[in-house]
Amino acid sequence: MSEKIKVGILGYGNLGRGAEMAISQQPDMELVAVFSRRGAVETVNKDVKTLHIDEATDYVNEIDVMILCGGSATDLPDQAPAFARLFNTVDSYDTHALIPEYFEKVDKVSKENNHVNIISVGWDPGLFSINRVMAEAVLHEGKTYTFWGKGLSQGHSDAVRRVEGVKAGVQYTLPSEESMNEVRRGENPELTKESSHKRECYVVLEDGAEASVVEDAIKTMPNYFDKYDTTVYFITEEELERDHSKMPHGGFVIHSGQTGTDQTDQIIEYSLKLDSNPEFTASVLVAYARAAHRLSKEGQSGAKTVYDVGPGYIHPKSPAELRKGYL
Amino acid sequence: MSEKIKVGILGYGNLGRGAEMAISQQPDMELVAVFSRRGAVETVNKDVKTLHIDEATDYVNEIDVMILCGGSATDLPDQAPAFARLFNTVDSYDTHALIPEYFEKVDKVSKENNHVNIISVGWDPGLFSINRVMAEAVLHEGKTYTFWGKGLSQGHSDAVRRVEGVKAGVQYTLPSEESMNEVRRGENPELTKESSHKRECYVVLEDGAEASVVEDAIKTMPNYFDKYDTTVYFITEEELERDHSKMPHGGFVIHSGQTGTDQTDQIIEYSLKLDSNPEFTASVLVAYARAAHRLSKEGQSGAKTVYDVGPGYIHPKSPAELRKGYL
Repeated sequence: MSEKIKVGILGYGNLGRGAEMAISQQPDMELVAVFSRRGAVETVNKDVKTLHIDEATDYVNEIDVMILCGGSATDLPDQAPAFARLFNTVDSYDTHALIPEYFEKVDKVSKENNHVNIISVGWDPGLFSINRVMAEAVLHEGKTYTFWGKGLSQGHSDAVRRVEGVKAGVQYTLPSEESMNEVRRGENPELTKESSHKRECYVVLEDGAEASVVEDAIKTMPNYFDKYDTTVYFITEEELERDHSKMPHGGFVIHSGQTGTDQTDQIIEYSLKLDSNPEFTASVLVAYARAAHRLSKEGQSGAKTVYDVGPGYIHPKSPAELRKGYL
Repeated sequence: MSEKIKVGILGYGNLGRGAEMAISQQPDMELVAVFSRRGAVETVNKDVKTLHIDEATDYVNEIDVMILCGGSATDLPDQAPAFARLFNTVDSYDTHALIPEYFEKVDKVSKENNHVNIISVGWDPGLFSINRVMAEAVLHEGKTYTFWGKGLSQGHSDAVRRVEGVKAGVQYTLPSEESMNEVRRGENPELTKESSHKRECYVVLEDGAEASVVEDAIKTMPNYFDKYDTTVYFITEEELERDHSKMPHGGFVIHSGQTGTDQTDQIIEYSLKLDSNPEFTASVLVAYARAAHRLSKEGQSGAKTVYDVGPGYIHPKSPAELRKGYL
C-alpha cells in the first residue's frame, strides 16, 4: 500500500468524535490532528494531537484532507469557504434549501485555490440523495418516497423537554409501516410527511405534574406534533437513562417504477438501520475524504457533491482490484 | 432542453426489446435504429428503423451511444471491442471471473479511438456492485451479503426441463428469510450460497410420468439441486402459462457493519423487486448510455465501470438542478 492519507478533523462534538473512530478503522488513513475552538479536547485515543482551530494554517502541508465536523446552522457557512482556501475538505452541510448558494460560495474559493471540496456528505443528504437520483434515472416513470426513522430527533426532543411538567424526555420519529407497504406494492400513494410518519415520546414527569395534561400539551403542539399520530409514554429517570441514551436513526428510500408497454412494476429500496447516527454520518464523511484526496491528486478542483463522485473513489481498493473482486 | 441523445441498439432479444421501451420513456433520448444479425426485426414501436448489423458502420456520425444487448457467452467478447472502435457503448457483460480481461481488451480499443465504453452495467453486476463497494467503504469493519431472488433462473429451468418425464417447467431461486434476518440483526453469520437460498420448481409432467420419480430426479441433480433446499410443485400446462410466463427477479445486498469503540451495529440494505428482469436491466443500460455520452463530451475516453461514474451522470437533469432538487 502507498503512503497513508493524512486527515485532519475540525470540530469535536459527536460527529468529530465519530470521525476520529472511523479514521482509525480505515487501513489507508492516519489522523494528523483534531482542531477545535476549545483547543485541547478529550479524544477517544489519548495519543491524538488536539490543537486550537487557529493553528490549522500551520498544517496546510501536513494534511491531505480536512473533515469539517461543525454544524450547518452557524459553523459551516463560514468555515467551509475559509477552509476551502487552505485544504481539500468534506462536510455534512444539510440545510437542504440553501445548498445551491452554499455550493457556489465554496466552489469559487475551491477553484481559486485548486482544492477539491465535497459538500453535503452523510446519509441525508448523501447516500439517500444518491439513491433518489439513481432510482429515478433508471426508472423514469415512477415515484420516489423517503421515510425517516426509527430515529431520535433532536429538535422534537427539545420541544418535548420545553413542555411544563416534563423533567426529561426524548422523541423518536417512525415511518408508517402501512404507508411503506403501499409503496412496496407499487400502489404509488399520495403521501405527506405527516401521514407517512408517527411520533413516539418517552417522558419523565416532574414531581406533581399531571400526566394527562402533559400528554395533551405535547400532542397538540403546533408545527411539532399536532398533525402527527403521536404516542406519549411515561417512564422513570432510570428507564430513560438505560433505554434511551443512544442516538439511533435510519430510514428508507423506496422508488416504485414502471417499465414496458404493460406497466410492469419494478421496486428499488434502500434502507439504513443505524444504532448511532453521528458515528455512521462520520463514517460516510471519512470515506468521501478518500475521494477528495484522490480527485485532487488527479488534478481536479472545485466544490463537488456525492453526485459527482464515482462510487469506486470512496473505497480503499484500486479500480483494478474492485473490477476483479466486487463487480 | 438541448438536443436529444441519439442512441442505437445492437441485438434484439429480451434485453434489446427492453432497451427500446426504456429509451422511449426517457425525456432526452431518441432511438436512431436497431441493428441485428437478422436485419429486419419486429420492434415494439413499428416506426423504429431496423437494420442489419453490418450497416452500423454507416451510422458512426448519427449515433452518440450504442447499447450492446448481446449475451456475455458468445456475443459481447467479440462485439464489445469491435464496436468500441466505432462508438461510445454500454454493455451488460456479466461473466464475473473474466471481467478484468474483458475490461483490458475494450479499454485498449476505446482509448485508441477516443470513445467511452461502460462495461458490465445492469443490476448484478451493476447496481448491486455499487452497493457492495459503497457499504464496505463506509463501514470498513463489517460484512457484505448478497441474496438473489425471488427470481426465475434460466439455467436451472433448462435443467429441470431436461429431466425425463418433465414436459415443461420453471425454476425460481429464493433467498432464505431466516438467513437474511440473521444478517439484519447484525449476527454476521457464516453463509454459503447453498445455505442462504432455496429453490422452487413448477413442473408439468409428461403423460404417464411418475411424480415421485421426477421429484427425486430433480432434488438429487448434482451441481443444480442436490445441495439446496428444493421444493417441487406439479401444475398443469394452463397454470404454467397463466402464472409463470413472466421473468421476475431481484435480490438483496445487506452490509452489517460496526463503528466506534463499543462495536455499534449499523445495517445498510439495498433490494430490488423486479417484475421483469430484462426490462429493468435494459433500463439501467439506458441510464448509463447517458453517462457514456456525457463523459465523452467532457473529453474522457477508455473503458469504464459503474465504479467510475458519478451518480449524477446517469440522471437527465443537470448537476445544478440535482443539487437544488434532490440532495
